[in-house]
Amino acid sequence: MWYLLCTQDTDGVQTSELDGRKRVVIEGVRPEIDAGRFAIKRVTGERVTVEANVFADGHDAVSCRLLYRRAADTEWRSVRMDAAGNDCWRAEFRVGEPGEYLYTVEGWVDRFKTWRGDLAKRVKAGQKVDVDLQIGADLLVEAAERANGRDRETLSDAAAALRDTATGGARVDTALAEELFETVQRWPDLSTATRYERELRVVVDRERARFSTWYELFPRSCSPVPGRHGTLADVKGWLPHIASAGFDVVYLPPIHPIGRAFRKGRNNSPVATADDVGSPWAVGASEGGHLAIDPALGSLEDFESLTEAVRERGMEIALDIAFQCTPDHPWVREHPEWFRKRPDGTIQYAENPPKKYQDIYPIDFETPDWRALWEALKGVFTYWADKNVRIFRVDNPHTKAFPFWEWVIAGVKREYPDAIFLAEAFTRPHVMYRLAKLGFTQSYTYFTWRNTKKEITDYFTELTQTAVREYFRPNLWPNTPDILPEALQIGGWPAFMSRYVLAATLGANCGIYGPAYELMEHAPKEPGSEEYLDSEKYEIRRWNVDSPESLKSFIGRVNRIRHENDALHQDRTLRFHETDNQNLICYSKTSEDGANIIIAIVNLDFAHTQGGWVTVDPEALGLDPVRSFEVHDLLGGGRYLWHGARNYVELEPDSLPAHILRVRRWMKTERDFDYYL
Amino acid sequence: MWYLLCTQDTDGVQTSELDGRKRVVIEGVRPEIDAGRFAIKRVTGERVTVEANVFADGHDAVSCRLLYRRAADTEWRSVRMDAAGNDCWRAEFRVGEPGEYLYTVEGWVDRFKTWRGDLAKRVKAGQKVDVDLQIGADLLVEAAERANGRDRETLSDAAAALRDTATGGARVDTALAEELFETVQRWPDLSTATRYERELRVVVDRERARFSTWYELFPRSCSPVPGRHGTLADVKGWLPHIASAGFDVVYLPPIHPIGRAFRKGRNNSPVATADDVGSPWAVGASEGGHLAIDPALGSLEDFESLTEAVRERGMEIALDIAFQCTPDHPWVREHPEWFRKRPDGTIQYAENPPKKYQDIYPIDFETPDWRALWEALKGVFTYWADKNVRIFRVDNPHTKAFPFWEWVIAGVKREYPDAIFLAEAFTRPHVMYRLAKLGFTQSYTYFTWRNTKKEITDYFTELTQTAVREYFRPNLWPNTPDILPEALQIGGWPAFMSRYVLAATLGANCGIYGPAYELMEHAPKEPGSEEYLDSEKYEIRRWNVDSPESLKSFIGRVNRIRHENDALHQDRTLRFHETDNQNLICYSKTSEDGANIIIAIVNLDFAHTQGGWVTVDPEALGLDPVRSFEVHDLLGGGRYLWHGARNYVELEPDSLPAHILRVRRWMKTERDFDYYL
Repeated sequence: MWYLLCTQDTDGVQTSELDGRKRVVIEGVRPEIDAGRFAIKRVTGERVTVEANVFADGHDAVSCRLLYRRAADTEWRSVRMDAAGNDCWRAEFRVGEPGEYLYTVEGWVDRFKTWRGDLAKRVKAGQKVDVDLQIGADLLVEAAERANGRDRETLSDAAAALRDTATGGARVDTALAEELFETVQRWPDLSTATRYERELRVVVDRERARFSTWYELFPRSCSPVPGRHGTLADVKGWLPHIASAGFDVVYLPPIHPIGRAFRKGRNNSPVATADDVGSPWAVGASEGGHLAIDPALGSLEDFESLTEAVRERGMEIALDIAFQCTPDHPWVREHPEWFRKRPDGTIQYAENPPKKYQDIYPIDFETPDWRALWEALKGVFTYWADKNVRIFRVDNPHTKAFPFWEWVIAGVKREYPDAIFLAEAFTRPHVMYRLAKLGFTQSYTYFTWRNTKKEITDYFTELTQTAVREYFRPNLWPNTPDILPEALQIGGWPAFMSRYVLAATLGANCGIYGPAYELMEHAPKEPGSEEYLDSEKYEIRRWNVDSPESLKSFIGRVNRIRHENDALHQDRTLRFHETDNQNLICYSKTSEDGANIIIAIVNLDFAHTQGGWVTVDPEALGLDPVRSFEVHDLLGGGRYLWHGARNYVELEPDSLPAHILRVRRWMKTERDFDYYL
Repeated sequence: MWYLLCTQDTDGVQTSELDGRKRVVIEGVRPEIDAGRFAIKRVTGERVTVEANVFADGHDAVSCRLLYRRAADTEWRSVRMDAAGNDCWRAEFRVGEPGEYLYTVEGWVDRFKTWRGDLAKRVKAGQKVDVDLQIGADLLVEAAERANGRDRETLSDAAAALRDTATGGARVDTALAEELFETVQRWPDLSTATRYERELRVVVDRERARFSTWYELFPRSCSPVPGRHGTLADVKGWLPHIASAGFDVVYLPPIHPIGRAFRKGRNNSPVATADDVGSPWAVGASEGGHLAIDPALGSLEDFESLTEAVRERGMEIALDIAFQCTPDHPWVREHPEWFRKRPDGTIQYAENPPKKYQDIYPIDFETPDWRALWEALKGVFTYWADKNVRIFRVDNPHTKAFPFWEWVIAGVKREYPDAIFLAEAFTRPHVMYRLAKLGFTQSYTYFTWRNTKKEITDYFTELTQTAVREYFRPNLWPNTPDILPEALQIGGWPAFMSRYVLAATLGANCGIYGPAYELMEHAPKEPGSEEYLDSEKYEIRRWNVDSPESLKSFIGRVNRIRHENDALHQDRTLRFHETDNQNLICYSKTSEDGANIIIAIVNLDFAHTQGGWVTVDPEALGLDPVRSFEVHDLLGGGRYLWHGARNYVELEPDSLPAHILRVRRWMKTERDFDYYL
C-alpha cells in the first residue's frame, strides 16, 4: 500500500491510487463554481470558454484538450487547447439543446512535440541527428499503433522514412513537416495523461432565459367594463397592447383563490370590507389552493385559452408561485403537520416581530413530513407546466429551505427542460447568489435601488465581470407592485424614461410592473414609503393605457432596439466607459461575434441638462482607435461622426435623457477591402 | 430513492443522502487551497483565522462554530464563530506541535436565539407573551436534555420559571438573561446542523520554518591552509564567524563524491585538468552516490561531529539534495532502468538543445520501476535525517515529477515532523506555487531579480496579501553560487547593503551565499552573465572574511535586529506605505500581537542620496493618527519624533542606505492610562 498517496493517512479517507508517472498538473480550471458543486449557466448556442493551468515538471512539452459532452451521452467530445501564456491553456465549445452538459480537462506530456522542438534546435545548431531520427521513428511507430485508417498508414510511412538513412537531409524535412505533426496530434499517447479531478456542469437553457422582456399585470384590473372584476379572458384584450410594445413575457400575479380570513383591505388595511378583493399573494380559500384558479378570474379553460393566445403572439405566460397559505388554504386542513403549531394549539402565522401577518401561514420546512411537502410543492410546478406554463416567477424563495430549491428545480427541469425560474429574492447578496447557484434561471437584482453612476458601475461590474456572471442571470425591474422606488416618486417622466433605458440596456432580461410604469404612477402610500398609494395588490385599478400621457411608445421604441440588436441580448460583454460628468453614465455591449456594438449614454439627473466628454475604450469595442466612426442614435434618430475615443455628449432630460448608439464602423474583411457594416 | 439529491443523475456518481431540514448553508470557507486539495501552513503557536459565509433561509437566527483537531485525534474541539457582517462568520484557533491539523465549520438554525430576539421585540412593543414564554420553556427543556451537570439543572430551573405564571414580569427577565443565553449556547441543538462538506488541512512546522537566516558555504574552501582541500572539520573553524554574524542555518552544497566523467573545469570549462575539483552538483563517483561523503571532505564521523558543533551554537546544518547522477554514480550501474536509454544504447545525458551536459544523467521519472526509484530517493532524505539533518535544500525540484514530491515530503515528515524542505525552483509562477502546495516548507523566490519599488511592492503584495501566503513561505536570497545579479555587479557596497536589508526585512526567511556576499564579490564570468567569475562551483576559493572590507558587521547588525524584533519573524503583516520618491521604498511589519512595529525605508538608488516624504498608514500599524510617536533607527542608531503619518526621510547610500525603525508609541492600556511601550 506504500504507493497509495495518503493525503489524510490518519483516517484513511482520502486515499487514491497513484500512478507516479502522471507528470502533468491541471489546476485552476475555470469557470468553476464552488469547486464544481454548482453548474454554470448558458443558453442554447452559447460558447463556453474554458481555461486551465496545465504544466509538467522539467522542459518537456505539454499538450491538453478540453473534454465535453451532454450529461446524457457517454462519449466525450474533445477540442485541443491552445497555450495562452503563463501556463494557461484555453479552448471553447458550444452548447446545444437545453439540458445538462459536462466538461473537464485532460493533459499529457507530449513526447513527439518535445522531440520535434528539440530536433529543430539541433538541426539549426548543425548537430548530428541520426540517433534522434531513430527516436522519432520509434515515436511514430507508437503513434501508428494508436491510429486508425489513413493516419495509421501515414505514420508508419513516416517512421520508415525517418529510418531510411539513404534519404539524408530529406529525413529532417519529413520529421519536421507540419502535416505530420498534425497527424500525430490526432493520436496522442494518453497512457500517462492526467484528467482534471472534477467534471464540471453546465445547465443549458433556451434563449429566453438570457433575453426576455417582462410585463406584469393584474388580470382583475383588465376588465373593459368599469366596476366589473377583470378576468383571464379580459387579459386577451390587452395582448395587442403588450405585444406591440415589444414585451415577450406576460407575467401574472398568483391566480389562485384568495383567502378570506384576516383579508387585507385597500392600502393594506388590516380590516377588509365585504367588497375588498384581497391580495393575490394570500393564496388559498375554500375554492382551492395552488392548483386552483380564483373563480372570479375564470376557469382552467379560460387560462388555457389565454396561454394559447399569448403564445400565438410570440409571447409567453409567467405564473407567480408563492409558497404560503392563508388560514383557508386546503393544505392547512389536509396537512396541518406542514405548519408550525404553538403551545396553545393555534397555527403560527407569519411574523416579523412586532409585526404580525395573521392572513398568512408560512410553511414549516422543518416538518418531519418534509418529503411529502416537497412533493406537493413540486406538484404545483408540474401541474402548471402540464398546462403549458414554462416560466415561473417564484415569490420570496429566500424564505424557503435552500435544499428544496435545488431539488425541485432540477426535478422539474428533468421533465420540462425549457422551464425558467425567476427568483424574487430581494435580500442579502450571498443569499441571492446562493439561490442562483441552486438553479434559479434568472434573479431579481438590486438595480431597483442603484441610481448613481458609481452604484451602477460597481454593481453591474460585479454581476457581469466576475464569476457571478457564470450562474446569476440578472433580471432588472425599475418598479414592481411592491416597490415604487424614490427615483420614480420624485423624478417625473425623465426618471421613468432613463430608468427604463437603464434596465433595458444594462440587463438582457428586464421587466416592468406594466400599467403603473407606462402611466407613470408615482404616488407613494405615504412619504418615505416605497409602497404604491392605492396599491393594486389590494384593490382593482383601472388603467387607461391609451392615454396620451402614456410612455408606451417610448418603451416600445426601447424594446424594438433591444430586439433588433444582438448586443443587448448579452450581459457579459457589458463594459463601462469614462465620462467627465458624474451625472452621465456610458457603457457598451457587443454581440458575441463583436459585429453589433451598442453604446448607451444616460443622463442620471432628471432635472437638468448634462453634457460632458465621453471616452470610450476602443479596444473593448474592437474599434480602430485612430479612425472616425459613425454612431447612430437608435432612440433619438441622430447620426454623429465620432473622432477617436473622446467625444462630447449633451442630454436634456425633458426631451430625451439617453442615447442608445449603434456603432457603424469601417471593418476590414478577409478580402482586404473596407466595407460599411 | 426520490429524496437522494442527484447532482449528476445521469451517471449516479455524486448522490448523497439529503436531509431536507438542514437549512443552513456554509460556503466560502477560507483559507482553503484548491478546494481543500492542499494544506495551509503554519508554525507551532501560530493562529489560524477561519472565515465562512454561513446563512439560512428566512429570518431565523443562525449560529456556527469552528471545529478543529490534530489529525491524529478523533475528537473535534470547537470555538464559537462571531458574525462579521454580510453573512461572514469568523473564529480562530492556535496550532500546537508540528504535524497535521484539520478544521471545518458547522452551522445551525438557532431556535433559542431566534426566540429570544423575537421575545425582546414583542416585550418592547407591549405584546402579550404568555404563549411565547411557553415556547421558550419547551426550548429550555430540550436544551436541558442535551446538557450535563450544573447546566442541566440551570436549564430545567429556567424552564420551570418560565412556566410559573405566578411570577409575572420576572419571567421575561429570566427568559432574556444573558447568563441563561450563554448556558443554552453551550448545548446547541445540532440535529439539523450543516457540516461544511470538506475538512481542511493545516501542516504545522516548527518555528524555524517561518524564521531562519541561512549562510551557504563550500566546505572545500574552508581550509585555513592555502592550497589544501578544505574539509568538514575545517568548517568548524568557521562556525564562530557564522554564529556571531547571526545566522542559524549553515547550508552546505552537496557533500557527495564528485563525478569524474566529463568533469567540468574552472569557469565551467568543458575540459577539466587533473587538479580540477569539479562541481559538487555532479553527484556520484566510484566512492559512492547520494549516501556517501566525498572522501576529500572527510568521513561520516567528521560530518556527525560538524553537525553536533553546529547544533551546539544554536544553528543547524542544511544539506543540498540534488537528484541527478554523473555517469559514475553507482545507480547508473545498479539501476540502469532509472535512466532513459537512446536507440544507440547510450544513456540520455542532460540537454537543453542545442546545449549538452554530458556530465549529468537526469533521472527518468517515467521509468516503469518508479516505485523502487521513489523509495531510493526517499531513502536519501531518511538516511541524512537519521544523521540528524532536518533541513534539506532541494536542488531544481521543478525538474522532477510533482507526485513524487507530495509523496516523499509527506512520508519523510511522518517520520521526522521537524523536517524542513526548501525548494530551489527558479521557474514559472504556477510551477513554484505548485511545489509549495505539494509540501515544500520554504521556497526560493524572484526576489533576486526584483529591484524597483513597483517590482518589489507588486511581488511581495502577491506573496503576503493573497492566498499564496497560506502555503508559500518565501526565502529571500540576494545572491547564490548560481546567481550574481546585475545590481550587485554594478551597485558597489551600497547595493550589497540595501539588498541585504531588503532580503532580511521583506522576508522572515532569508539567506546568502555567504563568503562571496560578505566580501562583495561582484565580477561576472563575462559581461551580461549572472555567473560568478572563477565560480566556487568549479574551484576552491580562499576567502578572507576577516578583511576590513567585509560587510560582516553590517550583516551581523541586521541579523541581530531580525532576531530581536518579532515583527521581522512575520511575513503576513507586511504592508507597503507611500513615498513620493520612486527610489525610496517604505514598508512595515508588526508582530502578531501588534506590540512590535518595524518600519523599513530603503534607498533603491545605489549612487545618489534620495530624500522624500513617507506617508505611513497609521491604521495598518495600530497607531493613533493624530499623536506624535518616536521611531528608533535600529540600524543607524538615530531617534526621531514623527508627527502623524507624513514625515521626511533622507538616505545617503554611501553611509547607510536604509532605516530600520522601531516604533515606540504611546499605548492605551485597559487600566486607561498611557504608558510608554
